[in-house]
Amino acid sequence: MELQFIFTKDKSKYIIIYEQLKEKIIKQIMKPNEKLPSKRKLAEQLNVSIHTVKEAYEQLASEGYIYSAERSGYFVSPYDIAWQQPISTQTEKETEEDTSVYNFQNGQVDDQAFPLREWLKIYKKQLVSTHLPNADWQGERYLREQISIYVEKSRGVSCTADQVYIYSGTQHQLQELCRFFGTVQAAIEEPGFKRAAAVFQQNRLSVEYVPVDEKGASLPQSDCRFYYVTPAHQFPLGMVMPIDRKLELLKWASESGTYLIEDDYDAEFRYKGNPIPPLAQIDQLQRVIYFGTFSKTLIPSLRISYMILPVELHEQFRQFNKEQKATVSRIEQRVVAEFMEFGLYTKHIAKMRTLYRKKREKLLECINEWLGNEFEIIGDLAGLHIILKLPEWLDEEKAIQLAAQAGIAIDPISSSYQTIEVRHYVMIGYGAIPFEEIEEAVRLLANVWNSNQ
Amino acid sequence: MELQFIFTKDKSKYIIIYEQLKEKIIKQIMKPNEKLPSKRKLAEQLNVSIHTVKEAYEQLASEGYIYSAERSGYFVSPYDIAWQQPISTQTEKETEEDTSVYNFQNGQVDDQAFPLREWLKIYKKQLVSTHLPNADWQGERYLREQISIYVEKSRGVSCTADQVYIYSGTQHQLQELCRFFGTVQAAIEEPGFKRAAAVFQQNRLSVEYVPVDEKGASLPQSDCRFYYVTPAHQFPLGMVMPIDRKLELLKWASESGTYLIEDDYDAEFRYKGNPIPPLAQIDQLQRVIYFGTFSKTLIPSLRISYMILPVELHEQFRQFNKEQKATVSRIEQRVVAEFMEFGLYTKHIAKMRTLYRKKREKLLECINEWLGNEFEIIGDLAGLHIILKLPEWLDEEKAIQLAAQAGIAIDPISSSYQTIEVRHYVMIGYGAIPFEEIEEAVRLLANVWNSNQ
Repeated sequence: MELQFIFTKDKSKYIIIYEQLKEKIIKQIMKPNEKLPSKRKLAEQLNVSIHTVKEAYEQLASEGYIYSAERSGYFVSPYDIAWQQPISTQTEKETEEDTSVYNFQNGQVDDQAFPLREWLKIYKKQLVSTHLPNADWQGERYLREQISIYVEKSRGVSCTADQVYIYSGTQHQLQELCRFFGTVQAAIEEPGFKRAAAVFQQNRLSVEYVPVDEKGASLPQSDCRFYYVTPAHQFPLGMVMPIDRKLELLKWASESGTYLIEDDYDAEFRYKGNPIPPLAQIDQLQRVIYFGTFSKTLIPSLRISYMILPVELHEQFRQFNKEQKATVSRIEQRVVAEFMEFGLYTKHIAKMRTLYRKKREKLLECINEWLGNEFEIIGDLAGLHIILKLPEWLDEEKAIQLAAQAGIAIDPISSSYQTIEVRHYVMIGYGAIPFEEIEEAVRLLANVWNSNQ
Repeated sequence: MELQFIFTKDKSKYIIIYEQLKEKIIKQIMKPNEKLPSKRKLAEQLNVSIHTVKEAYEQLASEGYIYSAERSGYFVSPYDIAWQQPISTQTEKETEEDTSVYNFQNGQVDDQAFPLREWLKIYKKQLVSTHLPNADWQGERYLREQISIYVEKSRGVSCTADQVYIYSGTQHQLQELCRFFGTVQAAIEEPGFKRAAAVFQQNRLSVEYVPVDEKGASLPQSDCRFYYVTPAHQFPLGMVMPIDRKLELLKWASESGTYLIEDDYDAEFRYKGNPIPPLAQIDQLQRVIYFGTFSKTLIPSLRISYMILPVELHEQFRQFNKEQKATVSRIEQRVVAEFMEFGLYTKHIAKMRTLYRKKREKLLECINEWLGNEFEIIGDLAGLHIILKLPEWLDEEKAIQLAAQAGIAIDPISSSYQTIEVRHYVMIGYGAIPFEEIEEAVRLLANVWNSNQ
């Protein structure tokens, strides 16, 4: 029986012969060890050149579908399993579109205020062929130097560029630390940053959830290797850790040999007085691993964060990661570095601080005016969100649900707790929402909430 | 004794009072519970407004350095540990500058041929405020859709955008898989990709190093959960896995419940016939987890890779990572997606394939001409590197050292082995080196090597 081929105009003839022969082999229309027609014969049959058939046969042979025996021609390769048939692929699931009109979600910034033109100008400058090959796995030195200057100036933390590591997000660097420390006991604030807790859980670590009191993170009971804390602006409750608690923590860390992972995620946005000095400044990076990010101060979707290690850990960590490669775009790293070097970064922060302060004041004013005394505001000295304590007659789930019905997106706070159940708090983020929308959004909230009483 | 303050012109008076008081407290010049001068008194002494002193005191109080007692004024906070003194920071270590003149290193691309202008044009278009907030943790849908179209077209792998995950490099996605699977038995080719082996080691997995034979990766002996393989172009040895071995592997994987991690890192660059179909095409993503990257086809320093999961793992993996955030710049993800959608990606690959083919031919020709028969070329059908088998009288270490002295950077191959010692092979990468330099570089190599005989 002659082999049948269907030629179409969109593909070259050798491809068609190759593909259709392969299909016949896969479907076992041609059996193992069956002889293929000679090149000449098939060429005549199909009215193509011998060269065309030769190319098709060679491709099939190089992939192992057929083999050649000297002077006898080509044969189908023997194999003893059934070829897998394509399985039906799932229907695409559309990502749920957020249909909210007003955005009070946490962890977002005001994207209308970003200096896109300056960014593009610098990106253009940095996009040169010498920046296409990979640089240092630890991060671009230019950026690490700028970060070391910035944290010294703005946070009093002295370090060298060698101690700075660039990663693609807080969770990513926490993950790298977990990998480095191995299976150890960890601790985290309760309530705390749920995405950090998730990293510990993913690493199957034993975790102590340490209660937050009115001074912020309290002291763990367990013998843990590291303790993740947010002293500048406790996440999510928002208190600023006073100096006595800071000293207590540092003393405990020093005596117990624990590392404090200080996540200074939004310290830039403090609305009263100077920024609070971090633990890393007080102990000069001895027991403290310092985390910073550009997600709040520049662009969340940029995915650039940094970690500053104590000198004591630096060599060991570098050795552990000697086969690693960088995980952040080199050109965008350089854009951030240039933003910092030429003062655009601090200028942008100052501008945003003013904008967020204005929004915060408006928000507090509107809450007092429209929601009234039964709603208590907590943790409003810093950051980009506040906590709202709800009255007895309104629980978190109901509050969020009613808000959503009114087109307002609000984040829960119960998900920040791992061991305790809380039901009367919500988070109001004011990073993303435009100033002009705040009053209307709070008024709407008051409407739906109070009518539920 | 009156407190002394030194005023300078570069700082506001309240900052100076705040900072110098804090220093006196830290240095215990002022003792715990010592009373501070009243605001009025200090203002008179320093000839500043009471408001200035008030601001300084409030900042100190908010940080916990001092406390106020009703109607009695401010006092230094009590604490019982010594403040840490700044420790001297290390001297900066300069990254070792590569002083090579000729670059035969592996894993690099020709950065002169990249279409920087087109890239910038698309970056500019994608840099809009709506792309500043974070998108899906799994990766920008636009990019995932383009990838699913591309792998179907170019590699015959059918999947939905839902099965595609964007990460910041092959090691990063391998790391995420390790985290997902937990402490399991892993397997990897011997020799293999050392950076992948390093991830397994970092995760403290038990690893079987499975010997590579003339067909590529052979079958593991151990009961492993996943097996990392490079069938299209074995790394580093360069053989193409024939179909019978592929089927053997798939049969074994299906029977033993193992996942094959197929790293298709440079399949785009094949110089004879069509690209070899991946395992993922043959078994339609049932036992195969498919890895691809833009490091070889676009920009290494971009740090964007992708992983395609079997449908069976998808929901579980998504659930496991539900608190994760994206790790790759959203705007750059969109630039790559647009590059793909409008055909610039395949156009660039075609252009580069022609360029690399030309370089490869030149390289082989020069090696034959200048180095002679004693140097055997291995694994030259695909990719961006070849293996050179050295003569008995020249070992790897000596060969690399002599090359370096002549200004030529070459990578070893012994570091790709974890359990076996090999001493007579080196890797010659031809991605980065300009075409015009190849002959001179090989001539120089021949010079230093042959004169060592």
